[in-house]
Amino acid sequence: MSTLRPSPDRPLDVVCIGNAIVDVLAQIDDDFLATHDMVKGSMQLVDPERARLIYAAMPPAVEMSGGSAANTAAGLASLGRSVAFIGKVADDELGEVFAHDIRAIGVSFSGVAATGVHAAPGTARCLVCITPDAQRTMNTSLGVAGRLGAEDVDLSLVASARIVYIEGYLWDEPVAKESLRAVMRTAAEAGTPVAFTLSDGFCVDRHRIEFLELIEHHVDVLFANADEICSLYQVDDFEEAARLVAGHCAVACLTRSEAGSVILTADGDRHDIAAAFARPVDTTGAGDLYAAGFLAGWVADLPLEECGRMASIVAAEAISHVGARPRVDLRELVEESR
Amino acid sequence: MSTLRPSPDRPLDVVCIGNAIVDVLAQIDDDFLATHDMVKGSMQLVDPERARLIYAAMPPAVEMSGGSAANTAAGLASLGRSVAFIGKVADDELGEVFAHDIRAIGVSFSGVAATGVHAAPGTARCLVCITPDAQRTMNTSLGVAGRLGAEDVDLSLVASARIVYIEGYLWDEPVAKESLRAVMRTAAEAGTPVAFTLSDGFCVDRHRIEFLELIEHHVDVLFANADEICSLYQVDDFEEAARLVAGHCAVACLTRSEAGSVILTADGDRHDIAAAFARPVDTTGAGDLYAAGFLAGWVADLPLEECGRMASIVAAEAISHVGARPRVDLRELVEESR
Repeated sequence: MSTLRPSPDRPLDVVCIGNAIVDVLAQIDDDFLATHDMVKGSMQLVDPERARLIYAAMPPAVEMSGGSAANTAAGLASLGRSVAFIGKVADDELGEVFAHDIRAIGVSFSGVAATGVHAAPGTARCLVCITPDAQRTMNTSLGVAGRLGAEDVDLSLVASARIVYIEGYLWDEPVAKESLRAVMRTAAEAGTPVAFTLSDGFCVDRHRIEFLELIEHHVDVLFANADEICSLYQVDDFEEAARLVAGHCAVACLTRSEAGSVILTADGDRHDIAAAFARPVDTTGAGDLYAAGFLAGWVADLPLEECGRMASIVAAEAISHVGARPRVDLRELVEESR
Repeated sequence: MSTLRPSPDRPLDVVCIGNAIVDVLAQIDDDFLATHDMVKGSMQLVDPERARLIYAAMPPAVEMSGGSAANTAAGLASLGRSVAFIGKVADDELGEVFAHDIRAIGVSFSGVAATGVHAAPGTARCLVCITPDAQRTMNTSLGVAGRLGAEDVDLSLVASARIVYIEGYLWDEPVAKESLRAVMRTAAEAGTPVAFTLSDGFCVDRHRIEFLELIEHHVDVLFANADEICSLYQVDDFEEAARLVAGHCAVACLTRSEAGSVILTADGDRHDIAAAFARPVDTTGAGDLYAAGFLAGWVADLPLEECGRMASIVAAEAISHVGARPRVDLRELVEESR
């Protein structure tokens, strides 16, 4: 576990690794969640048949690139950082959309799968159901995204970045998980700190033992919301969970929606960060963009309070419109709010 | 040319025929149009290679179902009318998106192409460049949409609808044009009035002689904006163009953006309709939704002024957000504005 930030002469600020997903977003009412056995605010993995059923029942939708770590990469690029994304798409229309959008915002991405993979399950899509309270409930059909094999992961990027950022969702696929173990070994050898997000409460439930081991031995910068960190330690009280995680990572960023966030360090420091004002429309990507804001500050060697402040501003932008990806130049947004 | 509205016992209010397209929308600046030789406000047909070049240069985008007559069909469904759409998609992801969205809003659509067509050019996409003045400039890669053969057109729908609505864009593809000639013959035999939109100034340039012949002999309800109707008669003055078209169709609806619209009848009546208030964000679909509002009133046997008023309300909704398809229940919107 490194508490140092590698020197700025590394060619890449951040490499993000995650599921390459195109979101299919639609506004629905609460009855829709009940009818389709969805737990509000969660991410459920669905097989192609269930995805078809849910999609058929959804109202007209909008397609937009998504994916948790990919959204973070897009945010970092919009904040002016050099960033690469590692993830897997198929050679189909949605794969083309994903690759276009992430490159167009300035992220280095070489992950288009070879022709022929099209016969495989196709590019991942996430059916995002947005309720009138701006909450998002997600149903992900992983497609090829979960098949992130060792051959898909360029370890040289991990060794040449100032930090590597990994999403917990990847633990849902054994192949991807193995690739990530290799990433963590490379990061340790190269002195690259590892940032990790717990992703989702149910995801934590599925992988609690492994996540606890990761946090104890491999993760330097942890991101989690209140639900996830409480699920990890199986406690109801946020402060209790915060007490339990403190000291395990160099930095732990715990988000609490409109109540802001808490940043804890292994040295025992605590920074309470206020949320930035937003009129919530769709919370898709709030956590992803919080991480982008924090990491943008982190690789710029800014103090943790300033990293947290940037995270709040960028997360507020994300929830003020449908979809996760930024609608404005985030660097300008942060500068304007100085 | 019929001036009568067929009896309400026909099972279908409107059948719309047009290119089945998924829009790829992005905000760009005016320099982008200049760099890529685009004429602001126009629709250009592009080959797949040029589409690739433009897309590669575009910023991150959003995908949303589009297509001129398809947008009109979606608007009519949202206004509570029974409506079918005839158009051609491929068996690919964008074809699935198009079919989902149009059915989800309540339009009857059976146009998914057979498997195997995927090797063909794929579902049509339109690269929509939105400038800060809310204007949209479109680049369409037609794909299979232009291959609307006789076998793709269910003429029984034409005979059973109270009106058939056809977009002029279809004249750009010889195969589709032939299919449309068959539609017009069926409409004449069945006593189904024909509504037609001139679609685009350049489209009028390409097909002026045929469009003039259509309007003189086959079209009952014409939709055109000022640019298109002036292009048709090769005059600069809107009033001159209005004078030239009057009498050729039972009804001609001529739109003039924020200056509202003029509805002319073969009997010499003229109704000047005010535009409804809108804060323009993206004019994509304004004309399509104007037609939807007008036709919804027309099939409900409302007076022409009332049809025009509904058209204005519905067009204003379309330009107040990115994308053409309605974001709200249009029937409720129209009722609220009573």
